Amino acid sequence: MLSIDQFRHLIPDHELASIYKKASSLCGTRVLHINSTYQGGGVAEILYSLVRLMNDAGIQAEWRILHGNPDFFEVTKKFHNALQGSEVRLTEQKKQLYLQINENFSQITHIHHDCVIIHDPQPLPLIKFYRKCQPWLWRCHIDLTHPHEGLWDFLKGFLIRYDHVIVSSDKYVQEDLALGKTVILPAINPFSLKNMELPPKTIQKYIARAGIPADKPVLCQVSRLDPWKDPEGVLEVFTRVKEKVDCRLVYCYNIAADDPESMRIHDQVYQKAKRYVEKGDVIFVLGNNDILVNAVQFFSQVIIQKSIREGFCLAVTEALWKAKPVVASNVGGIPAQITDGETGYLLHPGDHAGFAERIVYLLQHPKEARQLGENARISIQKNFLLPRLLSNYLDLLKGILQK
Amino acid sequence: MLSIDQFRHLIPDHELASIYKKASSLCGTRVLHINSTYQGGGVAEILYSLVRLMNDAGIQAEWRILHGNPDFFEVTKKFHNALQGSEVRLTEQKKQLYLQINENFSQITHIHHDCVIIHDPQPLPLIKFYRKCQPWLWRCHIDLTHPHEGLWDFLKGFLIRYDHVIVSSDKYVQEDLALGKTVILPAINPFSLKNMELPPKTIQKYIARAGIPADKPVLCQVSRLDPWKDPEGVLEVFTRVKEKVDCRLVYCYNIAADDPESMRIHDQVYQKAKRYVEKGDVIFVLGNNDILVNAVQFFSQVIIQKSIREGFCLAVTEALWKAKPVVASNVGGIPAQITDGETGYLLHPGDHAGFAERIVYLLQHPKEARQLGENARISIQKNFLLPRLLSNYLDLLKGILQK
Repeated sequence: MLSIDQFRHLIPDHELASIYKKASSLCGTRVLHINSTYQGGGVAEILYSLVRLMNDAGIQAEWRILHGNPDFFEVTKKFHNALQGSEVRLTEQKKQLYLQINENFSQITHIHHDCVIIHDPQPLPLIKFYRKCQPWLWRCHIDLTHPHEGLWDFLKGFLIRYDHVIVSSDKYVQEDLALGKTVILPAINPFSLKNMELPPKTIQKYIARAGIPADKPVLCQVSRLDPWKDPEGVLEVFTRVKEKVDCRLVYCYNIAADDPESMRIHDQVYQKAKRYVEKGDVIFVLGNNDILVNAVQFFSQVIIQKSIREGFCLAVTEALWKAKPVVASNVGGIPAQITDGETGYLLHPGDHAGFAERIVYLLQHPKEARQLGENARISIQKNFLLPRLLSNYLDLLKGILQK
Repeated sequence: MLSIDQFRHLIPDHELASIYKKASSLCGTRVLHINSTYQGGGVAEILYSLVRLMNDAGIQAEWRILHGNPDFFEVTKKFHNALQGSEVRLTEQKKQLYLQINENFSQITHIHHDCVIIHDPQPLPLIKFYRKCQPWLWRCHIDLTHPHEGLWDFLKGFLIRYDHVIVSSDKYVQEDLALGKTVILPAINPFSLKNMELPPKTIQKYIARAGIPADKPVLCQVSRLDPWKDPEGVLEVFTRVKEKVDCRLVYCYNIAADDPESMRIHDQVYQKAKRYVEKGDVIFVLGNNDILVNAVQFFSQVIIQKSIREGFCLAVTEALWKAKPVVASNVGGIPAQITDGETGYLLHPGDHAGFAERIVYLLQHPKEARQLGENARISIQKNFLLPRLLSNYLDLLKGILQK
């Protein structure tokens, strides 16, 4: 069981003390989190740790999962993309399926909580199927600056029933939403299998098992394989870097239960990278094991994050926490995590030459790369560990429940 | 939403009236069902319908799913087999994993219900991780007449904390368990996709899509592919039948999320059946779609169920409900469903010659086969539809909660 105690000497005592104080006035409050996947993806990772820490603080926090089926996840993935600006054909059939799965869930789950927190669009319509007797909050992890208009209007039909929205950036919600809004940045659990310190032997074992030789430096992107992570752009940057420094590119990709698109993209990128793959210079690692992802991040010389859109991007947080030099796109929550030139490098996602130049510099200047990484770790320790997230939630809950 | 109303004209009015009466004294009672899979397998199917019907009756029934991982399900599958008499190496590591996943779940789920019903062994240890403030019932769907001794002793360590056990047969629990015991037979939902009447066009479409030609009679077994369903014995029976009547064998198998063994068995049986498979006389159909299973059952001339062990065997109930002649092993819950010679045929599971003889007879005597099927349907309508199951649960809950 994760506990607040464990964070002593990582987080200043006065901050932990303040968490205990805030929590005591919420003692016994029943808070229900609902999302749609138990494993895979940042939301599930945060909930896994956050709900445990909330309970340690005396909140009666629960986590339930909306059970979908492949058709449902196909639709909600399209919605996810459309909320970030893609096109979508908003058919009656899609709407029906979306509503049906939510209604099904409502028939087997009763809600007697003091507060309900719905994560992301999948369980958003649930509110329609309950007699609402408590505040409902929508926690959206997606960049909503340019949503597909028709879809946004459809989803607002559910959103108007909510009390409050939580987003990862001030810019993420349109003015037209007549709801209270709070910005809360995500955070990581430094004790999780993905983030804890690993013994060198364990790292070697996992790296060997993943088929990554130790003879060249490694450039790595950890991400889902979807168009927003621009895996083809990563390949282009790698091609430029490779002209200057002999190195390897590792795609450490994961596949979430609610992400049917991944395999299609995998095949596309694999085809384009084929000549490198055959020489062993591009390696695909299925990061379905947290220790493996941890080991790959730790083993890499440079981490790239060439996203075109991002909600927040926990993969960057995790890399920075491992004191790695990160070269990343200046999008979504990434600039909130990296100060350009101090704790990493930020670039326009289209600036392939810039990406390549920074990466070559870091590979050729290990001392400067190390310094960048050390700054990064300190910054994460200060701002992006779980207790800060818990503290933000406690403030929000106090504000909403005790007014 | 499934409702009791829908059963009018299937179930006598006085029986439905009695359900409403029993339920009214339990109105608002909070009952929590917990199992470990949302899709795949009879338990999930029953819960899907039963929980909805309980809610329609005024009970506040909930259904939650213990979230496992592949390692956990590998272990609990071994436990399942060992409870039916197989060997198992009961290592500390297996016990730890089993407990850990249950403890993890207890950290994110609070229980404030009037009664908790735990289904099968996967979530059995949960009780250890809660302050118990209400009756806990263990609903076991497995034949427990010859459990592995060491495992049974280990599980009894959790069972002694329970108030009551529900089994599918009087013979299924050892004398050494000092708990109240109730026998409740499962039931089916006649309106589900798996059991509802399908238009002939739909049946044709699904049969064609499954690659089953319409030129020969079909013998079919619907089951998971595990050793207890004796898929190799089915092949042996088919070989004998085939000497007398030209027909096809269809294995309509399903794979549950908590059943990692299936694919291994599939490959074994496939190898043995290869010469038939190549001629198109043995067909494997992945029954991961309820309408497809429904269509395959309906399309078959004879249904075989050659299980060596069974809990209850819903596949037999479903076939009988479709007025199909069923030739089945005299094991587990099957004799509770079939009266030999009247509503189907019962045989010793080792009696391959007997199985073949009955099947040949049914294929050669369509009129007698039809009569057997009609008798079967009437018997299921009387004894194995969902309202009877609901009624049994209401009786049990009244007995336990109102004493």
